[in-house]
Amino acid sequence: MRSTIITLTTDFGLRDPYVAELKATILSISPNAHVIDISHMIEKFNIKMGAYVLACAAPYFPEGTIHVAVVDPTVGSPRRPIIIQTERSYFVGPDNGLLVLAAKKQRIMRVHEITNPKFMMPKISNTFHGRDIFAPVAAHLANGIPLGRFGPETKKFVTPQYARVVRKGSRLIGEVLHIDDFGNIITNFVEQHLTLAKSRPMFNVNIGKAKLRLRLYKAYADALPHKPFMIVGSHGFLEVSVNQGDAARNLKVNSGDKVVLSLY
Amino acid sequence: MRSTIITLTTDFGLRDPYVAELKATILSISPNAHVIDISHMIEKFNIKMGAYVLACAAPYFPEGTIHVAVVDPTVGSPRRPIIIQTERSYFVGPDNGLLVLAAKKQRIMRVHEITNPKFMMPKISNTFHGRDIFAPVAAHLANGIPLGRFGPETKKFVTPQYARVVRKGSRLIGEVLHIDDFGNIITNFVEQHLTLAKSRPMFNVNIGKAKLRLRLYKAYADALPHKPFMIVGSHGFLEVSVNQGDAARNLKVNSGDKVVLSLY
Amino acid sequence: MRSTIITLTTDFGLRDPYVAELKATILSISPNAHVIDISHMIEKFNIKMGAYVLACAAPYFPEGTIHVAVVDPTVGSPRRPIIIQTERSYFVGPDNGLLVLAAKKQRIMRVHEITNPKFMMPKISNTFHGRDIFAPVAAHLANGIPLGRFGPETKKFVTPQYARVVRKGSRLIGEVLHIDDFGNIITNFVEQHLTLAKSRPMFNVNIGKAKLRLRLYKAYADALPHKPFMIVGSHGFLEVSVNQGDAARNLKVNSGDKVVLSLY
Repeated sequence: MRSTIITLTTDFGLRDPYVAELKATILSISPNAHVIDISHMIEKFNIKMGAYVLACAAPYFPEGTIHVAVVDPTVGSPRRPIIIQTERSYFVGPDNGLLVLAAKKQRIMRVHEITNPKFMMPKISNTFHGRDIFAPVAAHLANGIPLGRFGPETKKFVTPQYARVVRKGSRLIGEVLHIDDFGNIITNFVEQHLTLAKSRPMFNVNIGKAKLRLRLYKAYADALPHKPFMIVGSHGFLEVSVNQGDAARNLKVNSGDKVVLSLY
Repeated sequence: MRSTIITLTTDFGLRDPYVAELKATILSISPNAHVIDISHMIEKFNIKMGAYVLACAAPYFPEGTIHVAVVDPTVGSPRRPIIIQTERSYFVGPDNGLLVLAAKKQRIMRVHEITNPKFMMPKISNTFHGRDIFAPVAAHLANGIPLGRFGPETKKFVTPQYARVVRKGSRLIGEVLHIDDFGNIITNFVEQHLTLAKSRPMFNVNIGKAKLRLRLYKAYADALPHKPFMIVGSHGFLEVSVNQGDAARNLKVNSGDKVVLSLY
Repeated sequence: MRSTIITLTTDFGLRDPYVAELKATILSISPNAHVIDISHMIEKFNIKMGAYVLACAAPYFPEGTIHVAVVDPTVGSPRRPIIIQTERSYFVGPDNGLLVLAAKKQRIMRVHEITNPKFMMPKISNTFHGRDIFAPVAAHLANGIPLGRFGPETKKFVTPQYARVVRKGSRLIGEVLHIDDFGNIITNFVEQHLTLAKSRPMFNVNIGKAKLRLRLYKAYADALPHKPFMIVGSHGFLEVSVNQGDAARNLKVNSGDKVVLSLY
């Protein structure tokens, strides 16, 4: 029997027992589940970063994978626990926007609120719904419990303000989605935005306070060492990088900074 | 066949090959074992932190789980390797107090010293008993080798000086067990200590050098942002927290600091 | 059926989705593969550190294990992807020296270049060959695809300049291979080099700018706390350590620093 994969994306870090408690809870209910970490190093309470990392990794997992994500600054408040079923997978977590960026990429089929205490831990802490609600729900899903038994279908769920790219006159305005661990600056521009620029393969780009004129390369190795350049990264987003260097540190750029691309 | 879970709790960190060597050794002996990390980010040589993290996570694992823990500042000295059998699990590691906090929660049945070289690596390094003794012993346990074959039963084992809460006149005195990755200050007070205080839900608490008057909340989300408050955390210990903030940094509190609660 | 172990050694870090994408790709192709992390905390672009960590861990894995390693500063350049078959295992990664230190320990049988796109992802990014080439190739190897189908045999592959210990008159000259997470200074000296010194068990050693006279101990616990000493570590290399302290920080030593041992 092929075991169901359950992935975990959290801001719990790796020092504390919390991640292990999720896994222990899952394996107590669904001993054959195959638990895979996506990341536990999401910045504390940074829902956008969690949404981004989950959206990058989820498409590569096999059909039927169950994704649990917990970045949950309002745990204990009335924000609802939900399950999103897509064409390929399930997403389990708080209804705070964390799941939607990834789920939308796979076409959302149904969203259910989680209300049935039968599939939660007997005692629900106010502070740790990852262990007490989301992990057991994912394990019961892996065991084949139908979606409808967890709670009622819902049409409303929080959709995060997607970072949108907008055109203002001769400029496209977007933002920095994420700084990856190599210091690459990942923007919400995709390749089709670049095709609008007359100047390609050279571009005038402002990011945060940096005013740059950059060339678009196909490979990191094509670029000169230690100089900034642009590349469409492996997740389809435009990145500003420094070959063998840390672009975000060099250019003093942070996640959320505005990105302005001049079209001509 | 349901595979046996073997958990790992160490201070080895995640840069070096050491954790992988434990897993490789286990899987070479017991290919069907299911190895789960609890944490490898225990502070170097901090037995108390290791004991705390293991004690938090272990209760959530299924019956029959084998817990290996290695925080072992005196590796190579005559401190003994031991196995503790409880009503639910096995604990394998050095006899330095690391295992006892977790094991006591599950009622200790028997303790055996590990002396039989047949279940160790052929060559025992002086510096890495995790790989050379504890990992192979856990793997052989998972394979069903009876406890008695690893070495003689022992009645003596190191019991760590538990952080005790003591009453002095109108005050309860305890200590900070742990600072978690969110900066929550976890004390060794439990809910029943709080019921002794006349002033509840407001409490006068001194922690380290901070003199505080705090309210007890049921959920993080009930508290005002950026202000300290008290909560009984998901492991049953009283925590001092700051909603969406880092309590330990704000209050300059460290693990081991004294905690004094005024009863009236 | 005993599932094949696939290990991962990368410089991807643990915050980003990259490691999960490797695992997702592997499990999509070979659902029964057993993926084990060696380390994802190799310093960015530090091929030597990656080679060292892989060489330490690989010998402990069972026969037939497939080791994937990705520290790949020139990804997207013409550097070739390769598979090395040894007497015990397979090594999959870039032909930049990363795999050879580990592979040589197991006697290299054959080296194949990876050229067959049938065993790669349909779309190969220029920036992420870990996911698009190395992970799927490892998964297909685990599924039993014969080595010859991935591409032609090759006799040429990059062999890293091993840090060699050389004798100059009355001195042996080597270098620091690695600083481990405990601050132990791991040199490329092995026990047989030490037997040449007349003064043992006391040694005159210069490391970086530090001039030391050190005793060789058998166990960390034999040494005085907080004083530097020498020990042959569990991987067979001479280490300079400080009992319960951080030798590299105390002595201001870095990876690559010269080590000079006086023989008399």
